[in-house]
Amino acid sequence: MRAEILSCGTELLLGHITDTNATYLAQSLAPLGIDLYFVSQVGDNQERIVGTLRRAWERSDLIIMTGGLGPTEDDLARESISALLGETMQVDPDQATELRAKFAQMGVQMPDSNMKQATLIPSAQILLNPIGSAPGWWVEKDGRIIVAMPGVPREMYRMWQEQAIPRLQPLLGGSIFTRILRVTGLGESTVEERVASLLHSTNPTIATYAKDDAIDVRITAKAASIPEAERLVAAMETNARELLGSYVFGVDRDTLASVVGGLLLARHQTLGVMESLTGGLLASSITDISGSSAYFAGGLVTYSSELKAQMGVPQETLQQYGIVSKETALAMAHAVRERLGVDVGVGITGVAGPDPLEGKPVGTVYIAVEGPQGSLATDSAGRRMNRSDNKRLSVYAALNLLRRFLAS
Amino acid sequence: MRAEILSCGTELLLGHITDTNATYLAQSLAPLGIDLYFVSQVGDNQERIVGTLRRAWERSDLIIMTGGLGPTEDDLARESISALLGETMQVDPDQATELRAKFAQMGVQMPDSNMKQATLIPSAQILLNPIGSAPGWWVEKDGRIIVAMPGVPREMYRMWQEQAIPRLQPLLGGSIFTRILRVTGLGESTVEERVASLLHSTNPTIATYAKDDAIDVRITAKAASIPEAERLVAAMETNARELLGSYVFGVDRDTLASVVGGLLLARHQTLGVMESLTGGLLASSITDISGSSAYFAGGLVTYSSELKAQMGVPQETLQQYGIVSKETALAMAHAVRERLGVDVGVGITGVAGPDPLEGKPVGTVYIAVEGPQGSLATDSAGRRMNRSDNKRLSVYAALNLLRRFLAS
Repeated sequence: MRAEILSCGTELLLGHITDTNATYLAQSLAPLGIDLYFVSQVGDNQERIVGTLRRAWERSDLIIMTGGLGPTEDDLARESISALLGETMQVDPDQATELRAKFAQMGVQMPDSNMKQATLIPSAQILLNPIGSAPGWWVEKDGRIIVAMPGVPREMYRMWQEQAIPRLQPLLGGSIFTRILRVTGLGESTVEERVASLLHSTNPTIATYAKDDAIDVRITAKAASIPEAERLVAAMETNARELLGSYVFGVDRDTLASVVGGLLLARHQTLGVMESLTGGLLASSITDISGSSAYFAGGLVTYSSELKAQMGVPQETLQQYGIVSKETALAMAHAVRERLGVDVGVGITGVAGPDPLEGKPVGTVYIAVEGPQGSLATDSAGRRMNRSDNKRLSVYAALNLLRRFLAS
Repeated sequence: MRAEILSCGTELLLGHITDTNATYLAQSLAPLGIDLYFVSQVGDNQERIVGTLRRAWERSDLIIMTGGLGPTEDDLARESISALLGETMQVDPDQATELRAKFAQMGVQMPDSNMKQATLIPSAQILLNPIGSAPGWWVEKDGRIIVAMPGVPREMYRMWQEQAIPRLQPLLGGSIFTRILRVTGLGESTVEERVASLLHSTNPTIATYAKDDAIDVRITAKAASIPEAERLVAAMETNARELLGSYVFGVDRDTLASVVGGLLLARHQTLGVMESLTGGLLASSITDISGSSAYFAGGLVTYSSELKAQMGVPQETLQQYGIVSKETALAMAHAVRERLGVDVGVGITGVAGPDPLEGKPVGTVYIAVEGPQGSLATDSAGRRMNRSDNKRLSVYAALNLLRRFLAS
């Protein structure tokens, strides 16, 4: 089944709101095995809504509309569907009674304009709205379906789950299952080259997506049942993992920080960090994880070199090798272990910019980890990036180094 | 000028990401006086992209595309524009050199597949991407314009602001000047009520937008010249500032952290922070500002209560008032001043969640500032929010308290 979403509302085209309804519906359609090919946002203008509806009617089996069901002149979803199908809106007596009862319950006189919320056309059935005044429409004609729902997200979610999906389910064949492999340490094109032999498979499909913190490799299968789709995905996942090796750090909703947290918990080890370049962002990323207080004791943001020395980095190291050096990063990791009495310490030092430091270019980063099992350090050459990107990427690099250290 | 947005990416149609790029562009188009009539999201499929482009080409003067400029087979924006216009993509030697240099700088071998990012068609010019590998295209043909930009939001924002808008501006009748007043401490509807008397002005226009860190009040004027538009804006700015008072913390690109940094520099004072709830995010926000090392000595992320005590918070305070209390926040602000030898100290303690602490609900936050001129503290009741929102909003609250303390 080919679906298409049409979101109505001038506020979308002015940027006053973001169309999260489309995201919600898209997430819901994929596991139902419904292919979503187009999403459109159109303002409250009947000519443009009908034009977009007409094109959708030509190319899709299912059109999901949100918005435009309110009582005002700007609410044009019903009028547009009626115009598309050449049918006439008429007040439905049951709906009119229902609507009046709703207003009476709120102790409010129903404005006349609301009466259009009680209308139907011959091809439409009512979708009840238990938490708002605007009922939806379920329209079936010529083998096509239009589902028109309110734009208010919680009203739409409930109508979709409780009334639209149960009506759709008998019309569908097959189920979908998706697994995401999260990859770090490789660029998107390198990831794609590694899994190139799998890319032309049509079921399951495999595709790469660059995210902020990782490259996602998404494997999706369609089958008669969820367990069968899961089996198809599992077979390709095995192949993909062989091609990507330990660059895969997690699946689905895992993050580097959540994976590191899991490793620390499993090893019953505690963590502390000393950071300058990243200015607290490493500690903040670690504490984004719910339950991190079980393994994270704290962090020292030693932005000045005096504070580094005060917190236990030897003056000789700072003077001999420089503030931005592998030796200082190692000394920071060591010092934070001592100072905070934790099992594992991380040190980061580097040049955030905008100016070079000690003759080292902006983006130079040294990261070190020290634990009972020894230490590990990496460096990275200068990158021409802005301050916040330098910080962000250095945090991912530090978490990945920590992951490798803990997993080894 | 009639504009239309086309966002490319299968991840949009699977609901894996929400099209916030469209919202950003919509907000930007309105003050430029460009009418946005349609927004579409299409998957990574050339036939569907070209079909949507063709329709847009028929009905709009300006088509803004995002996404589909990466190096992989799924990235089809360039191919689709070329197909629409019947032009052939060819590698541009300057771009190829530039792209190779970018990869060399990162110390990475450029995969062959990236070469398509160095291509052009006769009707296209390059839009540079200083923070990513994918350049954009500016296409002009038959009185129509296509702007193709990367889907990564921060790359797109920068390309749009720095390269697309300056190219668009001469094509729009008249000059436009915009001033943003940044407001904190009031909700969007309260801000709108305060400026209600100005909302019906048509030139300049005034509108409010809820941002992550503030409510933006945007004043935009159109006139024959920039100085004339500036004069119109300045008159309304005076009125708006009278209505909003000291809730206005800055203008345009100011952030709470940049304003606080400016105040510290002006007062020749240094800063240190001790935070638990916010887990390093306060220090990180402060160090996002270029040049912050001039006033920021460092931060202590005292996630465990042992570490709070070790860093100078009296055990008696922790025991008598609790870890999450105004007294502990004040003691943290005091301790960090002492420990780091700075002029001004900030302390934050609270309940990040998911579970209550010491009987205090998730979202409870105490913030304190201490300096030579005395101290200031605030508390906030529990909020039913997720962990990262609690952290983020607490950081804004702390920076705003610091701003009020420094400005008084």
